[in-house]
Amino acid sequence: MNAFEERTRRCQRRLAEVGADAAVLFPSTNLFYASGFREEPGERHLFLFVPQEGTPAFVAPEMYDEQIRDSSWVEDVRLWADGEDPTDLVAEVADDMDLRGGHLLVDDTMWALFTQDLRETLSEATFGLASEVFEDLRMRKDETEIDALRRAGTLADRVSVEIRELGEEAVGMTESELVAEIERRLGDAGGEEAAFGTIAGSGPNGAKPHHRHGDREIQRGDPVVLDFGAYVDNYPGDQTRTVVFAGDPPAGYEEVHETVREAQQTAVEAVEPGVLAEDIDRKAREVIEEAGYGDEFVHRTGHGVGLDVHESPYIVEGNETELEPGMVFSVEPGIYLPGEFGVRIEDLVVVTDDGCERLNDSPRTWEPL
Amino acid sequence: MNAFEERTRRCQRRLAEVGADAAVLFPSTNLFYASGFREEPGERHLFLFVPQEGTPAFVAPEMYDEQIRDSSWVEDVRLWADGEDPTDLVAEVADDMDLRGGHLLVDDTMWALFTQDLRETLSEATFGLASEVFEDLRMRKDETEIDALRRAGTLADRVSVEIRELGEEAVGMTESELVAEIERRLGDAGGEEAAFGTIAGSGPNGAKPHHRHGDREIQRGDPVVLDFGAYVDNYPGDQTRTVVFAGDPPAGYEEVHETVREAQQTAVEAVEPGVLAEDIDRKAREVIEEAGYGDEFVHRTGHGVGLDVHESPYIVEGNETELEPGMVFSVEPGIYLPGEFGVRIEDLVVVTDDGCERLNDSPRTWEPL
Repeated sequence: MNAFEERTRRCQRRLAEVGADAAVLFPSTNLFYASGFREEPGERHLFLFVPQEGTPAFVAPEMYDEQIRDSSWVEDVRLWADGEDPTDLVAEVADDMDLRGGHLLVDDTMWALFTQDLRETLSEATFGLASEVFEDLRMRKDETEIDALRRAGTLADRVSVEIRELGEEAVGMTESELVAEIERRLGDAGGEEAAFGTIAGSGPNGAKPHHRHGDREIQRGDPVVLDFGAYVDNYPGDQTRTVVFAGDPPAGYEEVHETVREAQQTAVEAVEPGVLAEDIDRKAREVIEEAGYGDEFVHRTGHGVGLDVHESPYIVEGNETELEPGMVFSVEPGIYLPGEFGVRIEDLVVVTDDGCERLNDSPRTWEPL
Repeated sequence: MNAFEERTRRCQRRLAEVGADAAVLFPSTNLFYASGFREEPGERHLFLFVPQEGTPAFVAPEMYDEQIRDSSWVEDVRLWADGEDPTDLVAEVADDMDLRGGHLLVDDTMWALFTQDLRETLSEATFGLASEVFEDLRMRKDETEIDALRRAGTLADRVSVEIRELGEEAVGMTESELVAEIERRLGDAGGEEAAFGTIAGSGPNGAKPHHRHGDREIQRGDPVVLDFGAYVDNYPGDQTRTVVFAGDPPAGYEEVHETVREAQQTAVEAVEPGVLAEDIDRKAREVIEEAGYGDEFVHRTGHGVGLDVHESPYIVEGNETELEPGMVFSVEPGIYLPGEFGVRIEDLVVVTDDGCERLNDSPRTWEPL
């Protein structure tokens, strides 16, 4: 039994525990996790039905036949051709698996286009979300997964150092040029593709937490938020440093940077099995509030990282998930001063038996390297 | 009134026509089309409520405040912070717009995570898909949109020619190396980012229509399917050529390539206002069937292209949409011989008053340039 099939069996046991009759996956990381087949969401009906007992079945466009057979252990692949009605196959699978009046857990990222269609085709079924079974399974990473995440961390660290070593050279580059340079180096270092939209937020752009990059030229003395990572064996890197390439930073910057650094350090030191996810958020927040910047820390402290760059456990107030060995998440407090600059420092950590291991360890300083 | 607001007003008139009370958008191309705000889907509640009458409202994470105000004309932006419950704001907007028992059209790509949540929060509402109002609006491109698509086409053509000129140099490169080279050149030529996963399918990999790229080294005589494009001003390019970089192609290849070329030419020549989308599919299919490869043409002939790389009108049997000036779609027949090779030739066309204009015009030959 290969690793994907084993995961599917675990998923089936969880379906029984929660009283659901099947999971219905569409192109997503859950689908990859269970089947080994990887694809982006698209407008064609492509489902994997995983019943509580028995054999899973794909409903897929004919054109994916070979790819599914090459990449997945699932042998029941039912194909429809463009011009045919895929809902006929959906109804057929539902009949074969006796799901017409069942409780189905659909992929959390399944498009409304398909959930609406499932609700029409299987009008007597009830619906929930597949995270009810997958979240727990995926939150605890096995050694293979942690190894890939560790290598993705090392790769991102290496590029972070290389980029910071640009020093004076980076002054005058636009954010977008810098991002192109980062992504080129991520690729050269063996990264599969950028794990998310690379962020280079210079000066006031750094105060917008999800600003990516633009035409702004980096000035001497600009704080620049650099947030990036690349996939290694399907698992992403994700780390952030806020740096000054050359010159003197603006007034107040050093204090803000030190506050964020201390908040991040304090939160990382608090990570160990049994602690709640929200406790880690509180640890970071307390340091920042004490320094008087509570209102400028406008996001949660972190997010789980695995096949998805954002997944459980979320490190946020109200999340009472108990940390367990094998969980991987980001610790990334930030302070954002609109019109001035922003500072964020982020590492991924994996929970160990007695604390945590950082997956990133490039210098958490802001000065030119 | 800016272009985005005008589109929203048209959307509101369509809502009245179809008897819906509001559209509920989430990060998608519909959201950009109506608001000017662009973001990737994510796990945080981020909605734009567009009521049939009156003023639209965002429900958004606090961290997006500045970005939304910078990019969108919509002034009613209701923010929630990490740790707060965003459904409180959803309920508030629903009350203000009197939508509790209404008929709501949700974005076709909205995640089940959010549609399930809307169904719970607004348990008396009924739900449909936003394509009911947006599809018609977006299918007819205005001059600004066509101009961007034309430039994206020219850019892709230019890189296609450059890559083909590699000739002997491409032999021995892996598909992934070739893809990196293509994407680098798309960027250098001014493309914003790859419009979709670039495809380089060499030899037997070309017979898998959605194979992207892998470690296979390109051999002398390999047919290679090259399918790529990049965004220009938010609109994508998308063209395909199947080429041999050096050496003699396998037996039968020339005939297959000529069949696909003729099918593509015949289909493009049939494009004009009043013709049905499915007629264009049939034109291409007839040529391929006549040559005896009907079973090896395993996908539809094309798809609309706009803010989404795949959108209406789909060029497929059963689609009785009448072509109108301003519609833009791909014409891309293919023949796939498992274990041997595949051939696909693709151009984008825009329907004109009396026929169509091709947005791609690089040589449709297979020989080294």
